[in-house]
Amino acid sequence: MDYFSRQKNTNIRLTLPVVCFVWQIAMIILFGVFIRYDKESNAHWVETKAHDNITSDIENDFYFRYPSFQDVHVMIFVGFGFLMTFLKRYSFGAVGFNFLIASFGLQWALLMQGWFHSLDPQTGKIFIGVESLINADFCVAGCLIAYGAVLGKVSPVQLLVMTLFGVTLFAVEEYIILNLLHARDAGGSMVIHTFGGYYGLAISRVLYRPNLHQSKRMQGSVYHSDTFAMIGTLFLWMFWPSFNSAITDHGDGQHRAVINTYLCLASTVLTTVAISSLSQKTGKLDMVHIQNSTLAGGVALGTAAEFMISPYGALIVGFFCGIISTMGYIFISPFLEKTLKIQDTCGIHNLHAMPGVIGGIVGAITAAAASESVYGKQGLINTFDFTGDFKDRTVLTQGGYQAAGMCVSIVFGVVGGAIVGSILKLPIWGDPADENCFDDEVYWEVREPESIPPILEYNNHMIHKQQDLSESNFSVEHCES
Amino acid sequence: MDYFSRQKNTNIRLTLPVVCFVWQIAMIILFGVFIRYDKESNAHWVETKAHDNITSDIENDFYFRYPSFQDVHVMIFVGFGFLMTFLKRYSFGAVGFNFLIASFGLQWALLMQGWFHSLDPQTGKIFIGVESLINADFCVAGCLIAYGAVLGKVSPVQLLVMTLFGVTLFAVEEYIILNLLHARDAGGSMVIHTFGGYYGLAISRVLYRPNLHQSKRMQGSVYHSDTFAMIGTLFLWMFWPSFNSAITDHGDGQHRAVINTYLCLASTVLTTVAISSLSQKTGKLDMVHIQNSTLAGGVALGTAAEFMISPYGALIVGFFCGIISTMGYIFISPFLEKTLKIQDTCGIHNLHAMPGVIGGIVGAITAAAASESVYGKQGLINTFDFTGDFKDRTVLTQGGYQAAGMCVSIVFGVVGGAIVGSILKLPIWGDPADENCFDDEVYWEVREPESIPPILEYNNHMIHKQQDLSESNFSVEHCES
Amino acid sequence: MDYFSRQKNTNIRLTLPVVCFVWQIAMIILFGVFIRYDKESNAHWVETKAHDNITSDIENDFYFRYPSFQDVHVMIFVGFGFLMTFLKRYSFGAVGFNFLIASFGLQWALLMQGWFHSLDPQTGKIFIGVESLINADFCVAGCLIAYGAVLGKVSPVQLLVMTLFGVTLFAVEEYIILNLLHARDAGGSMVIHTFGGYYGLAISRVLYRPNLHQSKRMQGSVYHSDTFAMIGTLFLWMFWPSFNSAITDHGDGQHRAVINTYLCLASTVLTTVAISSLSQKTGKLDMVHIQNSTLAGGVALGTAAEFMISPYGALIVGFFCGIISTMGYIFISPFLEKTLKIQDTCGIHNLHAMPGVIGGIVGAITAAAASESVYGKQGLINTFDFTGDFKDRTVLTQGGYQAAGMCVSIVFGVVGGAIVGSILKLPIWGDPADENCFDDEVYWEVREPESIPPILEYNNHMIHKQQDLSESNFSVEHCES
Repeated sequence: MDYFSRQKNTNIRLTLPVVCFVWQIAMIILFGVFIRYDKESNAHWVETKAHDNITSDIENDFYFRYPSFQDVHVMIFVGFGFLMTFLKRYSFGAVGFNFLIASFGLQWALLMQGWFHSLDPQTGKIFIGVESLINADFCVAGCLIAYGAVLGKVSPVQLLVMTLFGVTLFAVEEYIILNLLHARDAGGSMVIHTFGGYYGLAISRVLYRPNLHQSKRMQGSVYHSDTFAMIGTLFLWMFWPSFNSAITDHGDGQHRAVINTYLCLASTVLTTVAISSLSQKTGKLDMVHIQNSTLAGGVALGTAAEFMISPYGALIVGFFCGIISTMGYIFISPFLEKTLKIQDTCGIHNLHAMPGVIGGIVGAITAAAASESVYGKQGLINTFDFTGDFKDRTVLTQGGYQAAGMCVSIVFGVVGGAIVGSILKLPIWGDPADENCFDDEVYWEVREPESIPPILEYNNHMIHKQQDLSESNFSVEHCES
Repeated sequence: MDYFSRQKNTNIRLTLPVVCFVWQIAMIILFGVFIRYDKESNAHWVETKAHDNITSDIENDFYFRYPSFQDVHVMIFVGFGFLMTFLKRYSFGAVGFNFLIASFGLQWALLMQGWFHSLDPQTGKIFIGVESLINADFCVAGCLIAYGAVLGKVSPVQLLVMTLFGVTLFAVEEYIILNLLHARDAGGSMVIHTFGGYYGLAISRVLYRPNLHQSKRMQGSVYHSDTFAMIGTLFLWMFWPSFNSAITDHGDGQHRAVINTYLCLASTVLTTVAISSLSQKTGKLDMVHIQNSTLAGGVALGTAAEFMISPYGALIVGFFCGIISTMGYIFISPFLEKTLKIQDTCGIHNLHAMPGVIGGIVGAITAAAASESVYGKQGLINTFDFTGDFKDRTVLTQGGYQAAGMCVSIVFGVVGGAIVGSILKLPIWGDPADENCFDDEVYWEVREPESIPPILEYNNHMIHKQQDLSESNFSVEHCES
Repeated sequence: MDYFSRQKNTNIRLTLPVVCFVWQIAMIILFGVFIRYDKESNAHWVETKAHDNITSDIENDFYFRYPSFQDVHVMIFVGFGFLMTFLKRYSFGAVGFNFLIASFGLQWALLMQGWFHSLDPQTGKIFIGVESLINADFCVAGCLIAYGAVLGKVSPVQLLVMTLFGVTLFAVEEYIILNLLHARDAGGSMVIHTFGGYYGLAISRVLYRPNLHQSKRMQGSVYHSDTFAMIGTLFLWMFWPSFNSAITDHGDGQHRAVINTYLCLASTVLTTVAISSLSQKTGKLDMVHIQNSTLAGGVALGTAAEFMISPYGALIVGFFCGIISTMGYIFISPFLEKTLKIQDTCGIHNLHAMPGVIGGIVGAITAAAASESVYGKQGLINTFDFTGDFKDRTVLTQGGYQAAGMCVSIVFGVVGGAIVGSILKLPIWGDPADENCFDDEVYWEVREPESIPPILEYNNHMIHKQQDLSESNFSVEHCES
């Protein structure tokens, strides 16, 4: 194992346990001080029901949102986790670290979002229910998106630090966008995807590795790893209607968000396939595009899903997102790497950042174009929440605030990512050497070589006299198992 | 890549993008003209609620059907997709093309089903809600079943054509069976499985490849591909109760359909295992049977799931379906291939066509045997929808119409499949040569050989001096990666 | 195939089909005599509704529990099934036998639980609805847990026998604990996990194989099999909130159980990672811990999930469970095997038995500490069901009965397992020889070698002259395929 330490010390036996323990204990203390059940999950609900004249148990928010919550939960852990298993030897890191940082992040998100959105001024407590859990999962999604940019190049300790700051920044930008600007963003095109995308890209820029080609043998996928990744893709794709509708208004709000997202995503698949086929000499399809760009429509409808964008409007959004996202993988990602020195492992720029911006723009336009004839008087008020301080806001103004929200999320992502990236550059976090990136060996006990490719490569290297030390170490070490 | 073109031109760089773009643009235009939100997903719902005296948001059809819808959605994309990954080198095609045609098909289905079932005569619009999405997924299921028969032998362009016509035929036969004959078929034994099964078998017959043995090295499974296929099997199996109950009556209708399907499927597993074990010399089990025949019970209860078939009745149906379906794989599939020249890659005859027919018969019998003592007066009317034009229909007559519906679905499948098969035989669709069937290489960028088998075979070929050019090309090409 | 019979006859061509057929026919007869739809799934519900003054179809228990039921169903079939695929060559047995015994077990559970819990004295019938299906799945879970201890070492016939007795014992202990002792155990810390864990461990003890090291080459995982196992882990982890809330009280009961379980599991992940990293020289993580110990929190909150344990209380339980369970894999499992001769393939002692006991204790303490100020007067009565015969029970007494329930489940597990283990020791069930354990070859038609490892091993054996007959048979036999 010594060859790992030639440049970098990846021993995390001290830092990882310490960070996990300290943060988990901090969570327990803070939860003890701040977090309580809300009135719908409290045993006193029987009294609340009587008091509020609720006639049936089913009018508990739980029954409106729990199925959507579980779908979102699957997207966070299986969707994001398996989507990142496409690399030939980083499945453990993809699924496992995703699992770790999501589990930490959702606790911290409950606190951060609670302080900013639902701190009860009288008691000083945060009251949580199923909607809080959904919002915590949403918040975590932003950090998992960012993970996609640095996949394979950071240590779990760095990921935990990145998540701590990511959740914090998320809660602040969310507060500004949703509460101060009063923008609508139920599926998080701006709040989740744009922020998460630029946060990850900025971090990746700061952590730029000029010699990343040294781990070239570990980059790319094998047949099985691409199939595993399709599990992630499909669960994200299928459950995206739940994602975009999970916290929209009861009734028609949730119903409409589902229809819009369902249609938008279907449309995205066809244009993704078309562009992917066009991009290859004989029209072959590329799994990278199918795994990722098919999801761009869901991202881009995050803001407008609950609006009366109309079914064909949803199809149009999906149509262009499939094209743009796939072209992003073909043209923009290489450009970002070469020119801007942004190494984006999963191509989150094409799947989240860019479609997120499109989503923000679509949201701003459709909000500005909303009318009483389409929504109905009360429908318009409900959909845009023109109540309280905002009861005199016009749809045009709303469109402007939506666009402003868009900018806030970009700024928070870029600036926040740059700062956090600098922190992660400190040489104390146990990140891997360039030649050991994308390799589960560094942070996981791996028992046996997975498949033929490394050996074949090894043989080829032998034949072509291209073998280097790490290659042969690798083979010798693992063939014994 | 030239060796693919020795017999066939599989270059789809022109046709695939063109078909995708043309059809998606057509969808956008047609949706713009015809498709609107229904009253439960429209922002005007707040007025509808007041008008219809609906007291709670939860009495929106969304909350009755959304959990089932998401389960059905998983069956369509993960269930059907992964079930077909069993082939050693066709996982991308299985999951990827399934994804593509389902995404196209569901859009076209919303239009076709809308025109036939729910076109509003006054406005000329189709109003969609969550039940429409479920029905669109159902319609697509018919085409995905058909895909199972031709898996590995057709191009994605052919699949899109097949889906276009399949959805069209589906909507017509569904209209005849459900509206004109007023047969009941909530889980689609007839409408979905029988039609889809025979549609696929007829197409496969027309596209018969006498030299399919040339791709013998690519047929069959490997260990991992069988494990991937179990993901598909299990999600289909687990969520089948949702499939059969998704569009049944609110309340007891959905409740009962779930119980019946749950029990029926459990029973099927035991008899499938029994027959599978009996069929092998030392009683070993065959994954082909476990992956497929265990699902036959769900198919066969598609019509009767909502009836008062009683729990033990459901077990009996499952009991026989497991036996018949497994025997189908052992005896009937080889017979179909040799005698009738039907090459059925996934054995859809045993999983869908035959159990679908059984389901139609079970439905006809249980409908004819229904009585007021079992259902209650109002229960009988509700279950069989004996209202309006059909308010004087007797259960016996209903049984007859159920049987007639069965025949309609077979005729549509066979005749429709024969015609569509002829269209697909045109030499313009880029289908693979016989020796390249079941190989993802043809339509996908495959980066590396997956596992040892091809290499082993290659070596064997060397030893036995059976190597041909394509073999050696294959190995050389991919070992470099 | 003769080499399998050197010591043991694993031919199950007679026994497996006979057991499947006989038991399935018995189920049909017993269902015919006893099982009927309950009033909410019966076509007479329209009358029931009118009679009970139910105003909306959505007040059918179906809509309260069906989403949770489907999640539980996924846990049983995909969760437990794939969790056990971690072995390099036992994926078929893991997923397939899990599928078989769960399908049988749930039918038998409906009968056994029906006789003990819901036999209608007047009609002599058992009326089933969605809650019965959930309870049947729960009951099956106990047997699947037990399967984890003997994974790879028993025949499917033994598993069916084990399940028959397991479900029977389960129904009795459940009746004693829930009905006679009136303990609360909604998520089954005691009833499911403690019982299932000790039942499996006791059976494994009786079936102790001193020469199990002969199948050492088949023990342990490969890269892909560990990734497959993570599918199981994640679906269990994500849906555990549904598991613990599936049969709790409508409204706040379900809502609170979800929140508690969600938090507890998140906390478990962090401490599992911490201890796993601490246990390795360079801080590397072990997939065994991540796959299993991350779930311990869900087990340990099975009893108390519906209580007002408070969010930070849930975090604390998860905190300690992650530590204890991971330490169990590191220290206790080797001790159990060496000293107590308990060979526990999946480490169910650390994932189910021990956390189950913790859960029972947590439940007893939190019950004893319950107060009217926290729960409200009516809330306390609802949560602990202090009605009827138990209306005067105090929380302290309740705590005592909870502890008593704990003991009952241990006794039933250990004694029942010992007896059933003795039955399974009879030489008629077709179990594998020691050198063929953990090998799908014994009970499955396996078409090809999965990956390089066996060949590598074979080569190594050649080099080191360690080859034995079965090894070389293995290689020759499969390389032809």
